[in-house]
Amino acid sequence: MSDFPKFVHLTEMGPREGFQIESKNIPTDDKVRFIDALSETGVKRIQITAFVSPRWVPQMADADEVARRFTPRPGVTYTALALNERGRQRIKAYAGKLSLDEGPLTVWATDEFCRRNNNCTRLEQLEGLAGRAREAAAGGLKETAVRVGAAFGCNFHGEVPLAELMWVLERQWRIWHEVGVKVTGCWLADTMGWANPLQIKRTIGAIRERWPEIVNWSLHLHDTRGLGMPNLYAALEMGVDRFDACCAGLGGCPYGGSGNAAGNVCTEDVGFMCREMGIGTDVDLEKMIECARLAEEVVGHVLPGHIYKGWPLPRLGTRWHALYSARPAGPVG
Amino acid sequence: MSDFPKFVHLTEMGPREGFQIESKNIPTDDKVRFIDALSETGVKRIQITAFVSPRWVPQMADADEVARRFTPRPGVTYTALALNERGRQRIKAYAGKLSLDEGPLTVWATDEFCRRNNNCTRLEQLEGLAGRAREAAAGGLKETAVRVGAAFGCNFHGEVPLAELMWVLERQWRIWHEVGVKVTGCWLADTMGWANPLQIKRTIGAIRERWPEIVNWSLHLHDTRGLGMPNLYAALEMGVDRFDACCAGLGGCPYGGSGNAAGNVCTEDVGFMCREMGIGTDVDLEKMIECARLAEEVVGHVLPGHIYKGWPLPRLGTRWHALYSARPAGPVG
Repeated sequence: MSDFPKFVHLTEMGPREGFQIESKNIPTDDKVRFIDALSETGVKRIQITAFVSPRWVPQMADADEVARRFTPRPGVTYTALALNERGRQRIKAYAGKLSLDEGPLTVWATDEFCRRNNNCTRLEQLEGLAGRAREAAAGGLKETAVRVGAAFGCNFHGEVPLAELMWVLERQWRIWHEVGVKVTGCWLADTMGWANPLQIKRTIGAIRERWPEIVNWSLHLHDTRGLGMPNLYAALEMGVDRFDACCAGLGGCPYGGSGNAAGNVCTEDVGFMCREMGIGTDVDLEKMIECARLAEEVVGHVLPGHIYKGWPLPRLGTRWHALYSARPAGPVG
Repeated sequence: MSDFPKFVHLTEMGPREGFQIESKNIPTDDKVRFIDALSETGVKRIQITAFVSPRWVPQMADADEVARRFTPRPGVTYTALALNERGRQRIKAYAGKLSLDEGPLTVWATDEFCRRNNNCTRLEQLEGLAGRAREAAAGGLKETAVRVGAAFGCNFHGEVPLAELMWVLERQWRIWHEVGVKVTGCWLADTMGWANPLQIKRTIGAIRERWPEIVNWSLHLHDTRGLGMPNLYAALEMGVDRFDACCAGLGGCPYGGSGNAAGNVCTEDVGFMCREMGIGTDVDLEKMIECARLAEEVVGHVLPGHIYKGWPLPRLGTRWHALYSARPAGPVG
């Protein structure tokens, strides 16, 4: 248990992951209101939107308006996603207020997912990465992270064996190594919810064995099949201290029956688990719970998060205790 | 990781835990249909109902009819809950078909919960236990388990420190010790979802240190605040191989906003996690997913389970893979 981190940083992905998959057209006003509320929760990094083609993702058609209208809070980094040069250029218009997410440096672990998500192969992604690595090195970058999506499995390919993941990481590592940028970090995404806790541990262990200099870990875990939280807990046991998460578990699709793009782990549930285990986080739980209630109101349906629906742990003498005591008695399990 | 069990046994609690808290009146026909479907899933133990006062729990008013009408499957043990002598006598009418659940041997860790659930104090519960222990010893019982509910915390009292839990266990252990029945098991319930994974590990470790002869562990974990699955995973790491669970996560109240009686961990989600980690279980996942869909239909609203809504991990060449491949392409997170 000694590997547990003392403090965990959470990156809030709700405004992008969450609103991207809603079938309802969320008004820009609501998006801005939600981002501004998230700015008050203590998280230091928020992904607010994606600059992608409205033909592919009509929910993100208002990316420019969102970027213009939200109010940045000092000390918080706001990022946006872009998948091509056009998107990257659009983000540059908000320099100082908004940064490009590292997403473009990600390589997907399977060709099937690459083709569906980015309309290219893994080798083409790696070529693109090589170009950007040269630019970044020329721009003075000293350290970076290797980044793999669909790292644990893919709905369109199947399982991703560890050897396959290591191959993708090795290719990425060489690209950075050749341009003289040191790889000190690793970001892995379980994009479609394929990981299990043992796989998380084995994978982190194997990567550490190959590259002991990788010390900055970050995981992006989807809860598609209910293993988001145990996977995160297993990662905590391995000392991982940085996770992407979505307020209220946004991004999930409880009614869709597809599981194709189910939500990230829920920010306030993760913050709560950490707090209960004595691990600090960025997150002000009360404020994040308020944001989760706002998110539910905005999307118009129940979201997967737990603690925003239930009551936080009642402490004697608090208003929660009074509420519980007022409930009728009767057998429970 | 070497402490992981090779096989996990799940006790299905859905028909009792689930239907007990539904505000809708579930027709007896549906209850019987659900129990009979659960009998086909491979689980070896199913809690089907509770013989309690219909004034307190009107949802269980048809306990006798349910007990008469379900079709027992050879090799499966069916149990029912009773909280007093009257209930125990009612269950005896179905001897051979239905057993009394060990629930009555449980002592709650806090007086507040005792009073609300059983209308007595912990000391009165312990006195009752002493009486039943004498009867059981006279009847030839050789081994038993200590059983504590609300073992990790209580909404009406607050945290349950480990020392307090140990006091309750010690008192129970002495009762059995005095009548010559060996305590080889321990059942702990996180009745109101207060536990965290570290607490699970510390608690099991402390009990093992005090009573190394306790080797049969069983946990009853509620997912009230989203920690059901990481708690269960932490228990697996400690070698625990027996859990109560509810099909589809029944027993939860996603819309209630109370968290007072949220569901157990979800049977098929637990079975799935075990399978993915190479741990065997009783559960036929496909059949349990069918039961979960039936449960949703019967209660008339979405339930908390994950894999019954999503798609199981697609394997190449299976129908799942074909379904995924037919989905439109587009960026996901």
